[in-house]
Amino acid sequence: MTECDPKAMKKAAAEKAVDEYVKDGMTVGLGTGSTAYFAIMRVAELVKQGYRLKCVATSQQTEDIAVENGIEVVDINDVDYIDVTIDGADEVDPKLNLIKGLGGALLREKIVAAATQMEVIVVDESKIVESLGVKTSLPVEVCRFGHVRTAYGLKLQGCEPVLRMKGGEPFVSDGGNYIYDCKFPQIDKPFFLQSAIDTIPGVVECGLFLNMAAAAVVAHKDGTVTEMKC
Amino acid sequence: MTECDPKAMKKAAAEKAVDEYVKDGMTVGLGTGSTAYFAIMRVAELVKQGYRLKCVATSQQTEDIAVENGIEVVDINDVDYIDVTIDGADEVDPKLNLIKGLGGALLREKIVAAATQMEVIVVDESKIVESLGVKTSLPVEVCRFGHVRTAYGLKLQGCEPVLRMKGGEPFVSDGGNYIYDCKFPQIDKPFFLQSAIDTIPGVVECGLFLNMAAAAVVAHKDGTVTEMKC
Repeated sequence: MTECDPKAMKKAAAEKAVDEYVKDGMTVGLGTGSTAYFAIMRVAELVKQGYRLKCVATSQQTEDIAVENGIEVVDINDVDYIDVTIDGADEVDPKLNLIKGLGGALLREKIVAAATQMEVIVVDESKIVESLGVKTSLPVEVCRFGHVRTAYGLKLQGCEPVLRMKGGEPFVSDGGNYIYDCKFPQIDKPFFLQSAIDTIPGVVECGLFLNMAAAAVVAHKDGTVTEMKC
Repeated sequence: MTECDPKAMKKAAAEKAVDEYVKDGMTVGLGTGSTAYFAIMRVAELVKQGYRLKCVATSQQTEDIAVENGIEVVDINDVDYIDVTIDGADEVDPKLNLIKGLGGALLREKIVAAATQMEVIVVDESKIVESLGVKTSLPVEVCRFGHVRTAYGLKLQGCEPVLRMKGGEPFVSDGGNYIYDCKFPQIDKPFFLQSAIDTIPGVVECGLFLNMAAAAVVAHKDGTVTEMKC
């Protein structure tokens, strides 16, 4: 693999995560985004090899890719729990707390993560941070009704909320909601912040994934893949 | 007025609330439900008398009634704040904390309440309780995706969540979500419970309205109308 090729780095880490954690007979959660894509393709290979896997998709996009590649996708409401989910993240702190949602699927990703026994995150080393919020904005999914007011509530938490746009129009999530990307100087108390944000009327979900990930598979520029565990 | 006639009781209290709190030139929030209906009709009378009022509706149903009766309805995103909102409630405790949402409009009602300077609640005396949750279930609006799992998270908070149905199908809110009616034995710590429920992935909003109401106008069986204030 070429050193520093971001695609190859992601692919290697995603395949390692799938090979290590996905076993025959499992129910598997499939993440959304460029890293999760490689995990989906690896799961498809396992299915072709004869693994009997049922999968839950975290977005319409992921469901489409999975079905096209011969993966059985089931309704999350029809499974008791999900054995393993392989997903990406935008930031990972030393305790494996995450910021997710730049891909726009944070609500379903969080619901799937909450139903998952072993949430495995695949990232390249640029996503590893000492403290959440340092590099990226925190995505917050909000109800369209009254979103301007909800954004004001977010601002009072100490951030600059920016309505996510796509093609000149507000981006609409799979759940039919808007997303505000909220740049905080730094998130010192993520549990407090999550609680404060979640209780703002109009907030559907925020991109803080706290105490959810069990392992992070990390791709490095030098071509190695390491693992962080709680 | 006939003693104990529930409709007449509601009407008298709703009209008193409107007459006391709605002034010419205000932006007014219009609630949803059988009590709020009488408030809307009274607001329509004020408009016919020449009051210049802009109104924000908490549901499609309320918007339709308001427009049919000549009230100007504006988008909540186009107002800085709402001066007064007149709305009903399912339970009111001595500190004016509320349970709302049996009418199915809790999400928009809560967004409107959060944007309101003076939230005025109109109820009959049967809705006044010493402690929230004693009489009614707490409605919780949840994302359809993964709702069975979300309900399990609600159950872990100590309640019996029941999916609200309508005509043999799950009831769908204006926001496109499902509602679980959650019967707690009693809600001793509503702020803790709200925070716990709001952080369950998949929960959009819960029907606890805490520190939001500024006054409650209460209709009594003997025909009198009294007022509770914070």
